[in-house]
Amino acid sequence: MRIYWNRLQDRLERLRANKLFETFVIFVIIASALLIGAKTYEETSRFDIIMRWLDLGITLFFLFEICIRLAAEKRTLDFFKKGWNIFDFLIVTASLIPIDDSEMVLIARLLRIFRVLRLVSMIPELRMLLVALVKSIPRMGYVALLMFIIFYIYAAIGSFLFESVDEKLWGNISLAMLTLFQVATFESWATAVLYPTMEHYPYSWIFFLTFIFLNAFIFLNMMIGIVLDVMQKESAAEQLESGEGEVAEIHWMREQMVMMAEQLNRMEQQLGQVASQTPKENKGE
Amino acid sequence: MRIYWNRLQDRLERLRANKLFETFVIFVIIASALLIGAKTYEETSRFDIIMRWLDLGITLFFLFEICIRLAAEKRTLDFFKKGWNIFDFLIVTASLIPIDDSEMVLIARLLRIFRVLRLVSMIPELRMLLVALVKSIPRMGYVALLMFIIFYIYAAIGSFLFESVDEKLWGNISLAMLTLFQVATFESWATAVLYPTMEHYPYSWIFFLTFIFLNAFIFLNMMIGIVLDVMQKESAAEQLESGEGEVAEIHWMREQMVMMAEQLNRMEQQLGQVASQTPKENKGE
Amino acid sequence: MRIYWNRLQDRLERLRANKLFETFVIFVIIASALLIGAKTYEETSRFDIIMRWLDLGITLFFLFEICIRLAAEKRTLDFFKKGWNIFDFLIVTASLIPIDDSEMVLIARLLRIFRVLRLVSMIPELRMLLVALVKSIPRMGYVALLMFIIFYIYAAIGSFLFESVDEKLWGNISLAMLTLFQVATFESWATAVLYPTMEHYPYSWIFFLTFIFLNAFIFLNMMIGIVLDVMQKESAAEQLESGEGEVAEIHWMREQMVMMAEQLNRMEQQLGQVASQTPKENKGE
Amino acid sequence: MRIYWNRLQDRLERLRANKLFETFVIFVIIASALLIGAKTYEETSRFDIIMRWLDLGITLFFLFEICIRLAAEKRTLDFFKKGWNIFDFLIVTASLIPIDDSEMVLIARLLRIFRVLRLVSMIPELRMLLVALVKSIPRMGYVALLMFIIFYIYAAIGSFLFESVDEKLWGNISLAMLTLFQVATFESWATAVLYPTMEHYPYSWIFFLTFIFLNAFIFLNMMIGIVLDVMQKESAAEQLESGEGEVAEIHWMREQMVMMAEQLNRMEQQLGQVASQTPKENKGE
Repeated sequence: MRIYWNRLQDRLERLRANKLFETFVIFVIIASALLIGAKTYEETSRFDIIMRWLDLGITLFFLFEICIRLAAEKRTLDFFKKGWNIFDFLIVTASLIPIDDSEMVLIARLLRIFRVLRLVSMIPELRMLLVALVKSIPRMGYVALLMFIIFYIYAAIGSFLFESVDEKLWGNISLAMLTLFQVATFESWATAVLYPTMEHYPYSWIFFLTFIFLNAFIFLNMMIGIVLDVMQKESAAEQLESGEGEVAEIHWMREQMVMMAEQLNRMEQQLGQVASQTPKENKGE
Repeated sequence: MRIYWNRLQDRLERLRANKLFETFVIFVIIASALLIGAKTYEETSRFDIIMRWLDLGITLFFLFEICIRLAAEKRTLDFFKKGWNIFDFLIVTASLIPIDDSEMVLIARLLRIFRVLRLVSMIPELRMLLVALVKSIPRMGYVALLMFIIFYIYAAIGSFLFESVDEKLWGNISLAMLTLFQVATFESWATAVLYPTMEHYPYSWIFFLTFIFLNAFIFLNMMIGIVLDVMQKESAAEQLESGEGEVAEIHWMREQMVMMAEQLNRMEQQLGQVASQTPKENKGE
Repeated sequence: MRIYWNRLQDRLERLRANKLFETFVIFVIIASALLIGAKTYEETSRFDIIMRWLDLGITLFFLFEICIRLAAEKRTLDFFKKGWNIFDFLIVTASLIPIDDSEMVLIARLLRIFRVLRLVSMIPELRMLLVALVKSIPRMGYVALLMFIIFYIYAAIGSFLFESVDEKLWGNISLAMLTLFQVATFESWATAVLYPTMEHYPYSWIFFLTFIFLNAFIFLNMMIGIVLDVMQKESAAEQLESGEGEVAEIHWMREQMVMMAEQLNRMEQQLGQVASQTPKENKGE
Repeated sequence: MRIYWNRLQDRLERLRANKLFETFVIFVIIASALLIGAKTYEETSRFDIIMRWLDLGITLFFLFEICIRLAAEKRTLDFFKKGWNIFDFLIVTASLIPIDDSEMVLIARLLRIFRVLRLVSMIPELRMLLVALVKSIPRMGYVALLMFIIFYIYAAIGSFLFESVDEKLWGNISLAMLTLFQVATFESWATAVLYPTMEHYPYSWIFFLTFIFLNAFIFLNMMIGIVLDVMQKESAAEQLESGEGEVAEIHWMREQMVMMAEQLNRMEQQLGQVASQTPKENKGE
């Protein structure tokens, strides 16, 4: 019994690692994405039955693929040690929610959309991009907090001062923050926000201009700085690993220099010996 | 009497440096921010009395916290030597202005908003960000001045030429500068500013396009350049301090090389001695 | 017969490489561009006959120039080994389609526009720029794919949720993606897309803000990173080739150090010999 | 006679280089700028006579200052060897055009505005900024040319295809280029340009999206690349000059290494001598 299971496991493992099978999985993911897209066209309603069958097929195939990967693992629980596996498992099981339930239909549909994200976990290059992105989040966090504080203060001031001008834009602090975000993206900030406000408060341009300058200043300074810093460190780490590039050459030179310094010390000592003996001989003679 | 005071001071010092106390202060700052935000919602007017009491509580707590920090200092005046302490002191004392005075109510409210800024002085990471920002201001200053001159010249030309087109946009030099700032942010610059002007002055696109190109050119060139330069210098300084990274390795190598050069000089001298003696012996024999 | 042909080929080759001839070709390309531009003005319709003759002249000159370059090649097929030659050949032959055919007139006109692109193949600096651009495409590809996945998921969610709000903006997944692209460029995203949607779904700002943040975050991180990385590698390669600049100096130092290490090894060995012999003599005496 | 002139020249030279005098000139330039600004306010028309006198005073002062600088020069023609002097001279003499001539009043007024530019020639930091800007123009030129070609081709296609849609936007190639520039700045590109066009040509989004992507791609790649490259080279040059920073340290190390290599060669030779003599002695004994 055990032998049969092991043999099956080996075969499943081979199937899972098969390039053709991987390509087929990617193909099914794309098909599932296209199916979701097709459903948004009203003209497709007459193919409704075909689409339901296709959807069922895709759902079952994803279930089947996850089962294979689970079974192929020597210890089943090891499967859940990799983040990307958990990610796949959640997406697949979540899309098992029956779509016919009239109440849940919206949620089921939304969950099905997230199956497109499996493309990221299937293509190594995209996986690497995402890991790099996640790495730069913590450093961005404090900049985001600083910008949030500025937004909050300006929104509070704005909703105190301009509430009477336009209830819709400055009615409460949430609306004011949304308005300020609109201003920060430069969308109709002058024609729809600044000029109507200036009719009541002629000096309100100070409020908006300081806000825009502060934002642009912090954003430019910080974000570019962080992006560059993260990139430079990654580039240096990559060069050190591959042994190519100037950073690697500098590192190599530093190590070489330590060795040379030791060698020179040894040589000086020996030379000292030779020198101390030669004159002795000289004197001795 | 003195001993009691010193003992109390030690306790206050310990309280001030306590992580739990610091967290509680941050919590109170956030509560104060939320309170300010809540007041902007009309629905909260029935909780008015509770909010006044909460506000009073927060104001008193901030006063209490500043007093502790003042008392904890060995010499009271040392407290005012740190910029951040003065910053905190001003914000806290400013919010002591009674809110009931009907005339001053707006100013009191605005001052209360700035208490959110105490988050910056409480969280070291934000404090560092702000210091870095302030450092890059002087270099930005001259670029800002250059851009201001360009804005001023274009605004003067604009208000001379286009005053008859739209009094609201080009009526005087201040309005013209605001209009040009709107153009610089690309907000409705074509539909609301360029096209109406071109109906009267078909060649006015030259004015706007040169302005946009000059601005974009200077801004891109300067700001990116300065941000990168400041960042690179900070990164180099950081690497030299920590002793890691390529800049530190290069610096270490440079110092090592000075030592090696000295050692080689010593060795050459010794070798010269040995060499000069060996042939002598040779001849001598 | 052969000799005449070879002589002619040499002359054509000399003509092709002639700076004056090259300048004249560039001049004809610019004239052809101006002719295309002039045709878009209605006032020029009375010069129609002149323009047709000019157009014919330009077409024939381009044909003539390609023939010269084909004939100047020792082996005619070698001409098609260079990408830029194929590029020129396609553009020139495509514009031979007769413009009089009423059905094809639009296509013929469009093909004639692409003759302006010959400027790129004629000016070496532009050719280099284009090659550099094409090089950075593969790395941009995966970032573009990642952003496309995000657009697709948000468009699917958007067209499910907001279809009832505005059929024109969210009617199907293609329209939704176009709307999201509009949001990503910040064009009327708040006034024309967000606020109408918020009237029906007050929490739809979460959808838009997460979309904008994700996009800006990925775009900034990735694009700047890639551009910088590509540029840095090219700058390093250029420095190594020219032998100037810090990267070249570091590379030179690394090679120098390998030689110095070898020399030091030789010297240590010799010194070892000397040292081992001097004391022997000492003892021997 | 000559002696008096030389003495006067020395005094003028000392006056010109006087910090107080320079500050006063800057003050007069700012006053002249404010005067120009003040004239754009209608309320100032009653101070018209005062302003005319002020204007005359400023014009005369500028003339006086230029005369001093001309006279202070040992050889008068040397004055025109510096670009900034010619710049100042042109601005000052241009503003001598009498403002009363009703025909020339507009031109005279415009020329007076350019006097603000003298701030740039007076403040060394601004002068340096401008020189740096001018330096990066040639490299930007080819990128600008490439982008112009793309604009021209798209404008030609646009005015052929979409002329019937909106005469005002696509009527001729100039209008089409202006419309495309509006699209490139994202101003109302979707609501005012794309959607109206899509009603007649449902596939016109391909035209606009490829245009936006091409533009953004070239702009980002090129401009950031060039700005970084120029800045990096300047930073390296600056470090080499001041002798501080990693680039300077690398350069120092390279030179040091050349010297060390020579020293090692000398030492190896000497050591070779010693080594060749010691065994000889050995044998000789």
